[in-house]
Amino acid sequence: MRCSARTIPPQLLAGERITIPARTFDSVAVIGLGAIGGSLAWGARRYGVPRVVGYTPDRGEAEAAQRAGAVSALAATAEEAANETELVVLAAPPRPTLDLIRSLAPRLPAGVLLSDVASVKSRVVAQAIAAGLEERFAGAHPLAGTHHSGFAAAAPDLLRSCVVYVCATGERGRAAACRVADFWAGVFAATPVFIDPAEHDRLLAWTSHLPQAVAYVLATALAARRIPVQSLGPGARDTTRLAASSPTLWVDIFLDNRDEILSALAAVGSQLHMLRDLIDRRDEAGLRALLSSAATFRREVER
Amino acid sequence: MRCSARTIPPQLLAGERITIPARTFDSVAVIGLGAIGGSLAWGARRYGVPRVVGYTPDRGEAEAAQRAGAVSALAATAEEAANETELVVLAAPPRPTLDLIRSLAPRLPAGVLLSDVASVKSRVVAQAIAAGLEERFAGAHPLAGTHHSGFAAAAPDLLRSCVVYVCATGERGRAAACRVADFWAGVFAATPVFIDPAEHDRLLAWTSHLPQAVAYVLATALAARRIPVQSLGPGARDTTRLAASSPTLWVDIFLDNRDEILSALAAVGSQLHMLRDLIDRRDEAGLRALLSSAATFRREVER
Repeated sequence: MRCSARTIPPQLLAGERITIPARTFDSVAVIGLGAIGGSLAWGARRYGVPRVVGYTPDRGEAEAAQRAGAVSALAATAEEAANETELVVLAAPPRPTLDLIRSLAPRLPAGVLLSDVASVKSRVVAQAIAAGLEERFAGAHPLAGTHHSGFAAAAPDLLRSCVVYVCATGERGRAAACRVADFWAGVFAATPVFIDPAEHDRLLAWTSHLPQAVAYVLATALAARRIPVQSLGPGARDTTRLAASSPTLWVDIFLDNRDEILSALAAVGSQLHMLRDLIDRRDEAGLRALLSSAATFRREVER
Repeated sequence: MRCSARTIPPQLLAGERITIPARTFDSVAVIGLGAIGGSLAWGARRYGVPRVVGYTPDRGEAEAAQRAGAVSALAATAEEAANETELVVLAAPPRPTLDLIRSLAPRLPAGVLLSDVASVKSRVVAQAIAAGLEERFAGAHPLAGTHHSGFAAAAPDLLRSCVVYVCATGERGRAAACRVADFWAGVFAATPVFIDPAEHDRLLAWTSHLPQAVAYVLATALAARRIPVQSLGPGARDTTRLAASSPTLWVDIFLDNRDEILSALAAVGSQLHMLRDLIDRRDEAGLRALLSSAATFRREVER
């Protein structure tokens, strides 16, 4: 599925990079003004969306977003925000996102598209279909973020140039998915990657939810042992960084993507068992093989 | 044990920071010119040690160090490097460090001090005592580094302002420990922290070796599942960063600090088990409590 790329002559596709002004929207509503929602609104305003209406139930965050100029107007309710815009983006954890799809769908004006930014996509996309939005919904998940939360962690460039997964509801949702991809490419210079929702959740269980879980596990072990944080070097700080993220958000993600995460955690459990066994048996060759496979994998990142 | 601080009037100790020129050395030998040894030599040269003699069995690294001006002279052997200097620092993994203490001790000219930078200290200090260097050895472990290895990863400021653990051999090694602490404070503006070798190894098993092991475990799980590295976001990259480190170095450290690391890994195993169980049982309150204790701990780092 290619959208922003449609107007590029084929011979350029694999070659030089050219900037194509992707179609975007004249008005966008953002529901939730935390780190991601706040950055989405702010970036949209800064990079060419004339009208950005924001809504958050958190009064302090609403005021901070307005003071920063991240929104052109604040709405009193999510419905009101959705009423006068062409694209509504839900920027909330998975569970409130599901609730919002359910409550907004019946009142969504004709022609308005709905999207979201949640880290888990199967249930969100299923909910949109169940709510009758098959042709008007596309899920998105920008691979950007921070372990800080709330509007205080938002920045107009946080989502700039990120990879964004886009999940269509199916064949009937293709046009909506293309418009959402165009929005991300056009406003944020993002790289949209189309992916099936179930495949997204399986992949993200490994690439995002698992590292998050591992950081929590390490941090709780250090906390339980009462290790003074001052004694952590740069390595320990990096390895535990994700543990500073919002517990509310991550309880939601872990439960929403439960089965995939459990299977990824089981794999980590096996590797941990293997490492302990090799150290216990002083198996130098086995240990070297395990560490080398890890090093080979991780060094690829820096190529 | 206070050394650099000795000349500071007592009322200043807990108060304002003042710069005291700590006593240092006119000549230093560095055995091993990898990331740490190379940075040590280079920094010593740049920040006031007139003569820095380097030795490494790796010819490419020796040439690179000389080209960069990280050493004022290269020696043909470790013994030769040690011969004309006042302080000899071994910058090798734990096992070669033990071997070097054994081989250099009988030939170490009177008055020359020996030190090292290994991440595990009990066996190194015990070896120095066994080799008759009780009054002439102090172990050091700078809390700085990089997951890159070799002289290519060295930099004159890599060790600047770091915390450095200093392990005396005991009462009879106090003077040597003070001189080594002064070297780090004077040349690198480092903060020396005196610590018993066994206590060092217990603490480091948690603050350094455990995060390293966890990064390896996560990276091997991702590698075994054939996750494309391109799909890792910033969180996964940070959490696995340490896995790119040198397997040779870390096989050595894990085996040298075996018992302490096994007990830290057992704690991570329990926390992992607990997390899996909470997700499996969809225990939202329990999950929130676990993630919150991790978040509380990790957020302290950024205070």
